[in-house]
Amino acid sequence: MHSLPSQAMRPLSLTQSFTRFCFFSSSPSFPFFQKFQTRPSIFKNYAKSPLSIRNCTSSVTAKPSSEFHRNRTQPEPDNKLRAIRELFSKPGVNIDAYIVPSQDAHQSEFIAECYMRRAYISGFTGSAGTAVITKDKAALWTDGRYFLQAEKQLNSSWILMRSGNLGVPTTSEWLNDVLAPGGRVGIDPFLLSSDAAEELKEAISKKNHELVYLYDLNLVDGIWKESRPKPPSKPVRVHDLKYAGLDVASKLSSLRSKLVDAGSSAIVISMLDEVAWLLNLRGSDVPHSPVTYAYLIVEIDRATLFVDDAKVTPDVMNHLKNAGVDLAAQGAQLWLDPYSVNAAIMHTYKIASDKYHGSSGNERKHKANMYDDSNGQSRGPTGVYRTSPISLAKALKNSAELEGMQNSHIRDAAALAQFWVWLEGEIQNDAKLTEVDVADKLLEFRSKQAGFVDTSFDTISGSGANGAIIHYKPEPGNCSVVDAKKLFLLDSGAQYVDGTTDITRTVHFGEPTARQKECFTRVLQSVSFQGHIALDRAVFPENTPGFVLDAFARSFLWKIGLDYRHGTGHGVGAALNVHEGPQSISYRFGNMTPLVEGMIVSNEPGYYEDHAFGIRIENLLSVKEVDTPNRFGGISYLGFEKLTFVPIQTKLVDLSLLAEAEIDWLNNYHSQVWDKVSPLLDGSAHQWLWNNTRPLVKE
Amino acid sequence: MHSLPSQAMRPLSLTQSFTRFCFFSSSPSFPFFQKFQTRPSIFKNYAKSPLSIRNCTSSVTAKPSSEFHRNRTQPEPDNKLRAIRELFSKPGVNIDAYIVPSQDAHQSEFIAECYMRRAYISGFTGSAGTAVITKDKAALWTDGRYFLQAEKQLNSSWILMRSGNLGVPTTSEWLNDVLAPGGRVGIDPFLLSSDAAEELKEAISKKNHELVYLYDLNLVDGIWKESRPKPPSKPVRVHDLKYAGLDVASKLSSLRSKLVDAGSSAIVISMLDEVAWLLNLRGSDVPHSPVTYAYLIVEIDRATLFVDDAKVTPDVMNHLKNAGVDLAAQGAQLWLDPYSVNAAIMHTYKIASDKYHGSSGNERKHKANMYDDSNGQSRGPTGVYRTSPISLAKALKNSAELEGMQNSHIRDAAALAQFWVWLEGEIQNDAKLTEVDVADKLLEFRSKQAGFVDTSFDTISGSGANGAIIHYKPEPGNCSVVDAKKLFLLDSGAQYVDGTTDITRTVHFGEPTARQKECFTRVLQSVSFQGHIALDRAVFPENTPGFVLDAFARSFLWKIGLDYRHGTGHGVGAALNVHEGPQSISYRFGNMTPLVEGMIVSNEPGYYEDHAFGIRIENLLSVKEVDTPNRFGGISYLGFEKLTFVPIQTKLVDLSLLAEAEIDWLNNYHSQVWDKVSPLLDGSAHQWLWNNTRPLVKE
Repeated sequence: MHSLPSQAMRPLSLTQSFTRFCFFSSSPSFPFFQKFQTRPSIFKNYAKSPLSIRNCTSSVTAKPSSEFHRNRTQPEPDNKLRAIRELFSKPGVNIDAYIVPSQDAHQSEFIAECYMRRAYISGFTGSAGTAVITKDKAALWTDGRYFLQAEKQLNSSWILMRSGNLGVPTTSEWLNDVLAPGGRVGIDPFLLSSDAAEELKEAISKKNHELVYLYDLNLVDGIWKESRPKPPSKPVRVHDLKYAGLDVASKLSSLRSKLVDAGSSAIVISMLDEVAWLLNLRGSDVPHSPVTYAYLIVEIDRATLFVDDAKVTPDVMNHLKNAGVDLAAQGAQLWLDPYSVNAAIMHTYKIASDKYHGSSGNERKHKANMYDDSNGQSRGPTGVYRTSPISLAKALKNSAELEGMQNSHIRDAAALAQFWVWLEGEIQNDAKLTEVDVADKLLEFRSKQAGFVDTSFDTISGSGANGAIIHYKPEPGNCSVVDAKKLFLLDSGAQYVDGTTDITRTVHFGEPTARQKECFTRVLQSVSFQGHIALDRAVFPENTPGFVLDAFARSFLWKIGLDYRHGTGHGVGAALNVHEGPQSISYRFGNMTPLVEGMIVSNEPGYYEDHAFGIRIENLLSVKEVDTPNRFGGISYLGFEKLTFVPIQTKLVDLSLLAEAEIDWLNNYHSQVWDKVSPLLDGSAHQWLWNNTRPLVKE
Repeated sequence: MHSLPSQAMRPLSLTQSFTRFCFFSSSPSFPFFQKFQTRPSIFKNYAKSPLSIRNCTSSVTAKPSSEFHRNRTQPEPDNKLRAIRELFSKPGVNIDAYIVPSQDAHQSEFIAECYMRRAYISGFTGSAGTAVITKDKAALWTDGRYFLQAEKQLNSSWILMRSGNLGVPTTSEWLNDVLAPGGRVGIDPFLLSSDAAEELKEAISKKNHELVYLYDLNLVDGIWKESRPKPPSKPVRVHDLKYAGLDVASKLSSLRSKLVDAGSSAIVISMLDEVAWLLNLRGSDVPHSPVTYAYLIVEIDRATLFVDDAKVTPDVMNHLKNAGVDLAAQGAQLWLDPYSVNAAIMHTYKIASDKYHGSSGNERKHKANMYDDSNGQSRGPTGVYRTSPISLAKALKNSAELEGMQNSHIRDAAALAQFWVWLEGEIQNDAKLTEVDVADKLLEFRSKQAGFVDTSFDTISGSGANGAIIHYKPEPGNCSVVDAKKLFLLDSGAQYVDGTTDITRTVHFGEPTARQKECFTRVLQSVSFQGHIALDRAVFPENTPGFVLDAFARSFLWKIGLDYRHGTGHGVGAALNVHEGPQSISYRFGNMTPLVEGMIVSNEPGYYEDHAFGIRIENLLSVKEVDTPNRFGGISYLGFEKLTFVPIQTKLVDLSLLAEAEIDWLNNYHSQVWDKVSPLLDGSAHQWLWNNTRPLVKE
């Protein structure tokens, strides 16, 4: 997409203006994007998973944590609030309240700083929170993870709403309370799912308030002047076919046959990892996820990529051309012309839009004339209310992707071995290392590995009680020293050119208590063994949704009255986002996606004792067919293959709790770790791996 | 309810006329009966469970199977079809097609013969099937279990629709095909759930057909003259307080406080087991379930029972009076007067009804004036869209009910020991006993036990390949001899005054094959042991729905690529229906009801090898709190306690597949069987129990 410095319609930067356009194609009510209504629920699952902690918005790509300081201007909260309230009375706006959520328009987990509108307007930088501004009040809702941080960051103009605490109203309850009846509540419809908008609309209608969709202007953008970070502009690179395994033309061809099967003529793709996967492209626009901000429209006979063309190198241009993908040409006129978009899309959009917003909502009237010339064909949106075919296609890794994942995991394991031997030595020498120091050193070891690109999320490095804070993120200058006498939990991962890793280990540098060993052993049973049952060795028939397996992992903890308050596993991209759908392994039963051969999931049970310690053990697994002696029902039976090969600290294992078969599992795992990783190591790391992969014997 | 021989409105028998009335209170669209929309789905679960086989409509209470012969009149199919088609053109009917489902108006699993309308009109007596009659065609849909039976029973006027076979249309597809556009399709709305009716309505609207609710006349009843069996009229008895554990006044008081909590002023109860449980009454109107046909309206200050008063003995009358329950007085006038029903109910009904049927459907207009005088209060039906509070209250057994269940299970186990030693002796003497002979003999042993009332379902007695037919029901004159060289599966149960049993054992009288032993052992692992995992020993937190545990039972079979196509467990009533909700343990994930202390569930995994053999092992379990060393989250952790104490044939166990802990489980179970049941036995049965409870030792 070409630059539009003098774009008439909205005086915004390029990236935002194209976001605006995509009202036509990426509105949450647009039926092709039905998945947005399922995706958020998947990601909601992460809210109570270890992953939620990684939902941090303030890290910078592969920059050591200790060097990181947010470029925070002197707070001028009154000025910001005054400025945004001035916009309330603008013609075409005319609202009494405005809601600022956390999301960007792509449902990304990690977002670029220029889209951190809620953080800008409120000063609160936590990953989860909603700001609501009325003509005379401003309130911010966040959850228990962030109460302390919000107290520090909000100035006195803001009311902190501690979500979940007794008596704290919801945003709509509060609006119903503070606004005079008949108020107008504005939102940026690009940033809310249609479900959320509908729910809000209904809730505030009790006091006759109206929900106003402000399509043309995000009010925060409207006041966010020089200080606003530039939209990301890092170059896009081609993801090598040897890692991708399938060329773009083949992927497009397969997608098009699915479109035809579904009776669709086009699909608009806004999930950034889906665009990256489909086009074998990678980018660096957001921390941790190797993606670029873009939209893609695939029709039966053409495909058009909307991306800042400053990011597109000649190499990439050539790559796209070979695959039959055009770059969108010449700016705003194109974007705003409804005739350039397939009439079926417009019509489908209209039907879906009517369905969600009522057929003549005032706020949309000025758009309605845009599809008056639709050809009137009567095909309804039914056929396209489906999960994106790309979401599933991307989840099923081909052999090149699996090989890349395997290879990158071995290199990652080598870096971890080097790291652990270093850390144990430092602790032994009484070095006072903070949780951030340790995370930075781990990054240093990883960055020496071939093909290293980035961390795949903010490292969770928690000593003692910090390990029990599932979302813990150590901050430089405000974190603990790694204590030799306490449990240490380290959850981290990396992006490599050929794969993505995500691993957790919990260790003790001194003498663990009997309680810690018991809990660790239960978690270990959950993650790994027990005869034929627990997750790693589970066998299950085709069409089994992940949640069916979640209880397998918990059963050992339940037995002694323990549990953990997060899901057991999430999908992982291949050299892509560390969290991806559509599958998950969680006690939330809404996600019926079956596990399918080629999917990758994490397996990360844990146990957290508040104010004391946290334990989590995480390996990545790929789903594969198992060669069972029978095949009842003529179907396939599936199981898992490990991707992660890093020692599990045997000092924490209480052997008396384990059966022979369980000990065999651990010994066999460590023997594989040695075989696969030792060739990459020498010196002390080689010796450390040897020491830490010796078989256990029950006396 | 008093007899109404000259009831003006409809010349039907008493029971039917009152069914008609209950249009006001028990229509599936009536919001108090929202549970009907969940219940059927629970019972649908049974459709693929061992239970579905028990859904048989043709047995007679406690009458030996061999004496049973259906009182089947000479088929006059053309006459019946001609007669019913004559009604199609009656004023107020005026339809082009009529649908006759299997159900009665109470959603009962076992129904009285006078309500077997589909069997009467079509001649097909299987438990599942739908008849559809047009002016010139008649078709019957049934599933694979009944193809052969339907072929035999339908005459040439009927088309057999083999549901599930390729190319077989659904009822609505067929109607859309054979009716001229704009047809009127009649149903008896009492017999269809509103979901099913809505689905049908939408499907046939594609050809502009209209779904017509015939409230005033069931057309089958209209032609079913002298041959129609009388409505059941067996006397009602009081269920002794020592078994019920809680008096009626207390149950009503607890129900009323739930009504108040829900903002309701009344509830209409039509599920027969709920009426029986709430009033501590038992009856004999249908086979296997100790219930009586009745409706009950509970208001805040009164309770009114609608029942044929010929069934009400002075004892029962007194019992009801003491509990503040009135018998509905003086017939039809009362029933048809809308003012006698609380206005809130009428209004709620109206709103719900409008919601489901549109506010002015012609078919209901003649009813509309009945609530024109409603007091106009605006309370919507929201508050009452809940599962019946009685369903859950009934599922949570109190200590008297649990004690009754335990005691009746021990007596039942004694009868089974006597039965098995008899059967083994007969087989050894080369007696040629049929599957029905064996079932009859088992009934004989059971009927000698104190407090015996009835079988709790039709006995499933299957030799060899018949054991693999999950719904198998041997018919006298048309069943197999029990073969000494094959596996024999016996699933049976009884109603006692103090409890209800349901047990399955699979045995071999000669030498089982290695394959049979392997499969049996896997099922045994599923039902019973494996370290800490499988169902019997599972521990799980509060608020865990049953389906979470279903996979535990299957995991051992999955490991070798085996599975079974039915749920693992169903709820069981205490001296009530052998199948009850709201809980279940099934791979169908729709039922989110958590398991709660005091619930009773069956645990019945199996494996079925078509045309060869069937294996099922079933124990009943009660849910109880487990004393775990921790209580993470401050909640209770739950587990199971066994109710069933009958030996499991150790000859079928392949010891090499079992771990020590698994063998310990079996030995411990058999030791409990001996301790609990031996005091009730003497002679050869005592010796048999001794022989069959000896510990196994792994060499």
